Amino acid sequence: MGQNNNEQAQTLILGGTLQVDSTGNHPGGVTAATGFQAGAAEAEIKYKLKKDIALIYSTVPAAAAGVFTTNRVKAAPLLVTMPRVAGGRAQAIVVNSGNANACNGDEGVQDAVTMAAAAAAALEVPEELVLVASTGVIGQKMPMDRVLAGILKAAGRISPVGGAQAAEAIMTTDTFTKEAARQIEVNGKVVTIGGMAKGAGMIHPNMATMLCFITTDAAIAAADLDKALRHAADQSFNMITIDRDTSTNDMVVVLANGLAGNTEITSEEPAFITFQEALTGVCTSLAVAIARDGEGATRLIQVEVRHAPTIADARLAARAVAGSNLVKAAIFGRDANWGRIICAAGYSGANFDPGLVDIFLGDEQVTKNGCSLEFSEERALEFLNGDSVSITLDLKSGEAGAVAWGCDLTYDYVRINGDYRT
Amino acid sequence: MGQNNNEQAQTLILGGTLQVDSTGNHPGGVTAATGFQAGAAEAEIKYKLKKDIALIYSTVPAAAAGVFTTNRVKAAPLLVTMPRVAGGRAQAIVVNSGNANACNGDEGVQDAVTMAAAAAAALEVPEELVLVASTGVIGQKMPMDRVLAGILKAAGRISPVGGAQAAEAIMTTDTFTKEAARQIEVNGKVVTIGGMAKGAGMIHPNMATMLCFITTDAAIAAADLDKALRHAADQSFNMITIDRDTSTNDMVVVLANGLAGNTEITSEEPAFITFQEALTGVCTSLAVAIARDGEGATRLIQVEVRHAPTIADARLAARAVAGSNLVKAAIFGRDANWGRIICAAGYSGANFDPGLVDIFLGDEQVTKNGCSLEFSEERALEFLNGDSVSITLDLKSGEAGAVAWGCDLTYDYVRINGDYRT
Repeated sequence: MGQNNNEQAQTLILGGTLQVDSTGNHPGGVTAATGFQAGAAEAEIKYKLKKDIALIYSTVPAAAAGVFTTNRVKAAPLLVTMPRVAGGRAQAIVVNSGNANACNGDEGVQDAVTMAAAAAAALEVPEELVLVASTGVIGQKMPMDRVLAGILKAAGRISPVGGAQAAEAIMTTDTFTKEAARQIEVNGKVVTIGGMAKGAGMIHPNMATMLCFITTDAAIAAADLDKALRHAADQSFNMITIDRDTSTNDMVVVLANGLAGNTEITSEEPAFITFQEALTGVCTSLAVAIARDGEGATRLIQVEVRHAPTIADARLAARAVAGSNLVKAAIFGRDANWGRIICAAGYSGANFDPGLVDIFLGDEQVTKNGCSLEFSEERALEFLNGDSVSITLDLKSGEAGAVAWGCDLTYDYVRINGDYRT
Repeated sequence: MGQNNNEQAQTLILGGTLQVDSTGNHPGGVTAATGFQAGAAEAEIKYKLKKDIALIYSTVPAAAAGVFTTNRVKAAPLLVTMPRVAGGRAQAIVVNSGNANACNGDEGVQDAVTMAAAAAAALEVPEELVLVASTGVIGQKMPMDRVLAGILKAAGRISPVGGAQAAEAIMTTDTFTKEAARQIEVNGKVVTIGGMAKGAGMIHPNMATMLCFITTDAAIAAADLDKALRHAADQSFNMITIDRDTSTNDMVVVLANGLAGNTEITSEEPAFITFQEALTGVCTSLAVAIARDGEGATRLIQVEVRHAPTIADARLAARAVAGSNLVKAAIFGRDANWGRIICAAGYSGANFDPGLVDIFLGDEQVTKNGCSLEFSEERALEFLNGDSVSITLDLKSGEAGAVAWGCDLTYDYVRINGDYRT
């Protein structure tokens, strides 16, 4: 992806009026909203010199909501964080990369508790308001001496413009940081929603070794925040797939600290929809950035399914196409192999009539009513050569639609994953 | 896999007393059983010189049973073959490689009917007793002139020792032919079961671009043959996974012509179990050969799950581990990354307690009670360097078990599938 990776992440920000600061810095991220600060440090968890501890801090306690991995094997930080999020309030998040703290038994859980306690002490917030997250290798003990020193160091660096450093600290095999933000007006007050994410491998619904942290200064109750987050995640993080492996550590957490001063948003009023759409926009920006940066990926694949009988059918078909190894390898090879596209839709479990399906690569129709169509290989190749490849399936079997995102399957995916742990 | 591929396929034959003919030829395959003949020809469907038409012929009509792809998109030959198999009788099978005859609309179905009719005429059997199968690229019209000429040529070459040539003709990206056979005694008569298969890409339960044809001289009614085949397929073809793509063309068909002269086997007697086990043995040999020869594979992965609550749980977990891209890439990279193994079991949907799981690579235990264990990386590497890599998960949560097979994910998989159609 080369030098312009941060550029690419920025162009994925969807709509909204963003404040750009005087230095021209990226305005997104977890410190975009009022009252949120962040810091990062190098704790040498896996690598020397790489930032691997991030802290996110709200100057006041915030409403909290989260969605978590559906994997039966849950990493220790999730066992600590899930009940705390269920309580509906949080004020800080401590995150490390380089070690997943998964499959470490009771000791792993104790380590996660200790990390949260250390962050609580350093930031002077109640321990039960600190959430903890980890990403990295499974089954290796946490180097707690270095981790705790790193947390102290990160706390010392905490600042209202620390979002970008935090975004860097949570990266593993990511090749660029992922940040996004949006602003909306709620009852005459400007509300900001910002977030950061890391992805790369093990990206598959539901959840992935994907961490995403979103902060907003909106005033909204935890239950409504949870409702909006689930809606947003269904259309974003649950529609990306990189390798169909669902990790032990995934979480998306949102904190809302109310410092925008708006009247509290409740799910009965129009402002809730405005908020939910903006949150969905931030989540979609981050999700697409994760898909684009899939391990070894050279291009983003966007699959749109139109006119499915139900949304569930549309999502099944879109995700199956975006997740098919054969489709992904064909895209890597610039091969307009639409047979693999219809085949993936066919085994997806989605309900549709194969004899009605139209398929488009970019604007070029390649399949009509489930049959091959004479098409311009040259025009198809143009689309396949793009940075983003758009595949559309019109099922002509209903009114529902969905979009899924993925990436191509490349030699580098194999290289990265053939030699990750050692 | 080099020069010894046929050797490898042979060593996968499990048990049974096989007649080896005087020339020392491979005794397995579709002409092993009495009264079955086969022939093959080069029809230039996709390549010059490669055999791409196979005919299988029984000198008398046979009982027939089959299992077929679950993909909603079914290739034309399946639309013709499925109702004929449902009739319970067949006498010949015509197969082509190089073109899947899928997504070709009504014309495709007409072409499949025409292929069967041509084989029927050439072999002088009733048209409705001819089954048809195809494998290859989706969405390209069949070159019927060449196909029909090929069928005639193959019919002219039909012989009682033609099994190996037929096995060659059905290959696509396979690197070696896949044949197996077993013999059992039923009521004092020797019964032979032989078969051939092709696999390589799109191998995933249920079914795959996998064609498998089994012939036996057993006397058994079609309904009981069907019952035995379903049992066999569940333990063999439905337990292999290469890339989690399920194709439009898969079928496993078995013909039983009764020429062994045994009293008809019925599902109420012990002989049925003997027959069913032998059929399962043939299917397992062929399934394992398919997994070993997965596109780009350098090694077979065998995943055994022990002590699961139910067989369904065991199968889910075993298949998820064998099918995980991350596990497959780790095996390719000789990385004893057991975290990916437990992670895959965790998202498989299988019911188990992660805190009880023991994992073994070969004989080396690497995980105890879901936690990392000090283990010899050197010993683990020995197992990972083998031609076959054995992974065992002991869930310690019940009495059920299952075995699944797959292969590693390699650069060559990407290369082959990045440039297949064009």
